[in-house]
Amino acid sequence: MNQETGIAILAPGLLGGSLALAARKRFPLTPIRVWARRAEAVEEVRQRIPSAIGCESIAECMQGVSLAILCMPVQHMPAAAQQIAAAAVRPDLLVTDVGSVKGSVVAALEPILFAKGITFIGSHPMAGSHTTGMANARADLFQHAACLLTPDEKSPPAALERLRAFWASLGCRVLEMSPAQHDHHVARISHLPHVMAALTTLAALKNDTSPIPCAAGGFRDTTRVAAGDPSMWTGILHDNRHEVLAALQDASSHLRELIEIIENDDLTRLQSLLAEAKQLRDLVPPPTAA
Amino acid sequence: MNQETGIAILAPGLLGGSLALAARKRFPLTPIRVWARRAEAVEEVRQRIPSAIGCESIAECMQGVSLAILCMPVQHMPAAAQQIAAAAVRPDLLVTDVGSVKGSVVAALEPILFAKGITFIGSHPMAGSHTTGMANARADLFQHAACLLTPDEKSPPAALERLRAFWASLGCRVLEMSPAQHDHHVARISHLPHVMAALTTLAALKNDTSPIPCAAGGFRDTTRVAAGDPSMWTGILHDNRHEVLAALQDASSHLRELIEIIENDDLTRLQSLLAEAKQLRDLVPPPTAA
Repeated sequence: MNQETGIAILAPGLLGGSLALAARKRFPLTPIRVWARRAEAVEEVRQRIPSAIGCESIAECMQGVSLAILCMPVQHMPAAAQQIAAAAVRPDLLVTDVGSVKGSVVAALEPILFAKGITFIGSHPMAGSHTTGMANARADLFQHAACLLTPDEKSPPAALERLRAFWASLGCRVLEMSPAQHDHHVARISHLPHVMAALTTLAALKNDTSPIPCAAGGFRDTTRVAAGDPSMWTGILHDNRHEVLAALQDASSHLRELIEIIENDDLTRLQSLLAEAKQLRDLVPPPTAA
Repeated sequence: MNQETGIAILAPGLLGGSLALAARKRFPLTPIRVWARRAEAVEEVRQRIPSAIGCESIAECMQGVSLAILCMPVQHMPAAAQQIAAAAVRPDLLVTDVGSVKGSVVAALEPILFAKGITFIGSHPMAGSHTTGMANARADLFQHAACLLTPDEKSPPAALERLRAFWASLGCRVLEMSPAQHDHHVARISHLPHVMAALTTLAALKNDTSPIPCAAGGFRDTTRVAAGDPSMWTGILHDNRHEVLAALQDASSHLRELIEIIENDDLTRLQSLLAEAKQLRDLVPPPTAA
């Protein structure tokens, strides 16, 4: 059962828009309030979800809601939190976000909101794609996705339980970890692959695009996320740069090793490197079985 | 219309098995002869294609066929070509292969077969997956795939036309290029992504597999091909090592540049690197539109 009196979604892009669709489907009677910087973005949501309540300000969007979800790029979240802190809100308001970095987000938002007695707990649903915007939003985006919650010692257990129930009701597998552990994990499993997809694309095509007609599923899959929004990813990589750097330095040392192996035409070591990678990759369950 | 009197498929794994299924579907009346090193592999084909003719030797497999397709790992192709050269074959026999490297394959196979008056032209259907074996074979594997033919000055135009018609009839987009150009293109568009997927997997998970439960579509897609067969890929990377090395050195210099950008927290350059990768990736058409 949904315990929320109303859900506010701030900045409905791909994730926020999908969240609005999923929440509307799952909780047909709960008010869904939407705010976006651009009025056209709110209008786009209202075309797909006529019952959604468009709001002209963040303060207006907070009216009567017990759950507010920040869906803008991470660098714009502190300003939004300031406006929530300045608004009249319900005493049980729980604020969360969907940002891809948690250490910097929690450190920035918690003090702003806690100072006004508002609870903040970070969330990171591992959903999305290389596309953006409400036009690509889907009600089933969160089905089977991992959602990483990053409570800390200040998080009230009841609020954490509500947040857990909310994401689970949208079909997520909910995991809990500290913000620091989150940033380590996603640097390896999300930010690193993103950057490697970009580097693979550059190394494949920057000097000469003539191999493009030969592309098959291997190239398409390996580089798909390189089509993601450069500005959004700049913000993510900046916020998590220490963990990302460590992952890239590991990638660099594996790459140097591989170049040396191929230079020496050392087939035994080449096969064992590929076999080790396969063994690790085989540990990753398919999406629905995860 | 199929002009072939019979089609021989040597070593029906994922590609050869899919080829047998596709040819059976497309040419219901053409004899399909199959040879494999292991008798069980032939049996597996005959369970899915009862009309396929299992053969105990390569010589037996050549009886009456006008098209023979080598589907074993590239390092085993010269030995198979020797056996074809030693067999009694039709004067119009055309031999091709499905190997992922063409310079070394054409250089090895052409002299063996031409010495006996047998035509060889290399093929490389850009199809397949990280799975292997007849169990994963599919009749539609070649639908919309690029198939790269690598004729040279010795290739008879009529044989090239037959080969082109054969692959087109299975649904391939047929492209022609020299063996050297092929090896350059696939180093960038296939071999590099394969190696980068393996390196991403190692950098993500070798020290610590605990991020695995957080994996989403980005990691799954970027690293999918790292689950491919290490022994087959060792052969491919060995055969094409000069082109692969050049591609890896480009990847290495892009990686060094990116590490420096992140160390300096240079957001302008970071965003422009990501934007350049996105611009290139956006040039790659989706599979069916290619």
